[in-house]
Amino acid sequence: MASVAVLGLGAMGTALAGAFLTAGHDVTVWNRTAARAEPLAARGARVAATPEEAVTAAPLTVICVVDDTAARQVLDPLATTLAGRTLVNLTNGTPEQGRELAAWAEKHGIAFLDGAVMVPVPVVGTPDALILTSGPPKTFEAHRDTLAALGGKVRHLGTDPGLAAAHDLAMLDAFFTGAAGLVHAFALAGAEGISPEDFLSYATEVATLLPAIAAGFASAIGTGEHLGAAGNLRMDAAAIRHIAEVSRAHGLDTSALDSVLALVDRTVAAGHGEDSFSSVIELIRPPAPSAAPADRPD
Amino acid sequence: MASVAVLGLGAMGTALAGAFLTAGHDVTVWNRTAARAEPLAARGARVAATPEEAVTAAPLTVICVVDDTAARQVLDPLATTLAGRTLVNLTNGTPEQGRELAAWAEKHGIAFLDGAVMVPVPVVGTPDALILTSGPPKTFEAHRDTLAALGGKVRHLGTDPGLAAAHDLAMLDAFFTGAAGLVHAFALAGAEGISPEDFLSYATEVATLLPAIAAGFASAIGTGEHLGAAGNLRMDAAAIRHIAEVSRAHGLDTSALDSVLALVDRTVAAGHGEDSFSSVIELIRPPAPSAAPADRPD
Ligand SMILES: NC(=O)c1ccc[n+]([C@@H]2O[C@H](COP(=O)([O-])OP(=O)(O)OC[C@H]3O[C@@H](n4cnc5c(N)ncnc54)[C@H](OP(=O)(O)O)[C@@H]3O)[C@@H](O)[C@H]2O)c1
Ligand SMILES: NC(=O)c1ccc[n+]([C@@H]2O[C@H](COP(=O)([O-])OP(=O)(O)OC[C@H]3O[C@@H](n4cnc5c(N)ncnc54)[C@H](OP(=O)(O)O)[C@@H]3O)[C@@H](O)[C@H]2O)c1
Repeated sequence: MASVAVLGLGAMGTALAGAFLTAGHDVTVWNRTAARAEPLAARGARVAATPEEAVTAAPLTVICVVDDTAARQVLDPLATTLAGRTLVNLTNGTPEQGRELAAWAEKHGIAFLDGAVMVPVPVVGTPDALILTSGPPKTFEAHRDTLAALGGKVRHLGTDPGLAAAHDLAMLDAFFTGAAGLVHAFALAGAEGISPEDFLSYATEVATLLPAIAAGFASAIGTGEHLGAAGNLRMDAAAIRHIAEVSRAHGLDTSALDSVLALVDRTVAAGHGEDSFSSVIELIRPPAPSAAPADRPD
Repeated sequence: MASVAVLGLGAMGTALAGAFLTAGHDVTVWNRTAARAEPLAARGARVAATPEEAVTAAPLTVICVVDDTAARQVLDPLATTLAGRTLVNLTNGTPEQGRELAAWAEKHGIAFLDGAVMVPVPVVGTPDALILTSGPPKTFEAHRDTLAALGGKVRHLGTDPGLAAAHDLAMLDAFFTGAAGLVHAFALAGAEGISPEDFLSYATEVATLLPAIAAGFASAIGTGEHLGAAGNLRMDAAAIRHIAEVSRAHGLDTSALDSVLALVDRTVAAGHGEDSFSSVIELIRPPAPSAAPADRPD
């Protein structure tokens, strides 16, 4: 049984406070708009009238508001109240914002972890809930048991407080691009007279392949060896061009596909035509400042 | 034990012929460049000197060459030889190419299925191999047992001979866009100092979510109800903007992300800000020619 304060009771803050309550913790909550605390009060949370009152009630404060600007507005006046306590920021943001908040916390003697909630509201508190944190390992260790209430996958990524946001952004990068591809595929199937229900099992076949594809990419990118044995970028370019042409003929928007195709074409033009798809990373990344010794023709 | 002819012995044609051999069928092969038939000859295939000779050796011919133009070059002179026999085209192409080849086959009295191989070469012949066919159901039924040699998932999609290519293109649409998102995510993680090995388990978390996301999309697109209960497009736009900004700050190419963001922004501007991500389909598809009765404000 620990005491925890939760600042911010939007959809996500409410879910986090609810998960702490479910785990039997002593929870004090505050929200700018007081009415949003009522459902939690009915479940046994103490409602603080001010953020100071909430923070004072517990050694651990979790904040989850809409964005970094809102978080700073709530936190800046709390610097002296939070001194000597622990703050965990679960407002999603950028790595830079996480590092800046960490520097602010350090300056005021506040133990701090920056974090990110990687699952939708209904998943919070379940074994599947992935929650990322980063910052001093001993701060994580001190509150690991309390934070475990939030889900089965509460992870500490390392000392750099920007790591949680960095993982968050990279994961969402893959997520939104993949989601856009799925919706486009349903649109193309629909234009060809295939219903969403009928296409679903084929969309699922593709989605189910992606974890193995990701593993192949990780190893190719790690070693820099983009072996085109099981398909190469020149063939991929031809296929993507086909898909874009057929999509365009149906009047579908092809802007994302066209961008992927342009990237693939540039990568082929740079000499990767016989390499695997993962070689597009060479044209996504800025060129290295100077050639590595192995790349020099000597 | 059936007899089957295979025309085209590139990487894929060789794998198809090999799978027929493994299943114990009587296989006759032909390739434009004769030397590529040698490994199959060593495994017991009969090697035909001309495509006519190959086709004459079996009631069923499978062709798999680089593209539709090559397939037509091989097939056009075979029209009378193929009459009364069955042709299965596993050269990947567009739905229109499949329908045109079907019309040509019909005109010459050739039973015909158009198809597509949906897996890389090493998977052909295994339980995981997905192979799509479309055309007259009775043509599929007549050769279903022979074609089963090619993999555990040899599917017949319907009478329209364009259906196999349509599914192929829509699946590859989701695949390549998703793959581009994964590579970009590894690039962003790398720019933040996270190694491919370290990021892999997080990339896998995302990829593992996509089948459930696809199911949600299928139901939202099918019903037209894009319920934004567990996250809405306005929030998604903010997140994608973040990812693009951080990527740009690292000097990464953001063209695909920018295209996805522009699509999301247009969808928000069209009034879908509180809807779920799947509502971008409304801006991917061309507007319906006239409003459906249910959409009319009367
Ligand atoms: N919802 C999800 O599915 C989900 C999933 C993963 C991560 N997240 C992340 O969780 C965080 C919160 O999201 P949410 O879904 O809870 O958002 P939300 O439902 O829109 O709630 C926003 C919260 O921020 C507060 N807020 C906004 N501006 C403020 C200010 N200037 N001062 C004080 N409080 C302010 C709001 O207070 P009022 O009630 O007074 O307006 C409310 O408590 C975001 O960073 C989001 O990216 C959400
Ligand atoms: N490889 C894969 O992983 C994979 C996966 C799924 C689907 N597919 C599809 O399978 C098909 C074949 O791919 P592949 O990997 O086998 O290609 P490939 O290894 O490049 O082989 C191309 C084949 O096409 C033949 N060809 C090209 N132009 C020709 C012409 N004008 N006349 C006669 N034959 C001609 C080649 O004959 P020569 O030997 O004489 O050049 C060779 O047999 C493509 O539609 C591809 O999209 C491939």
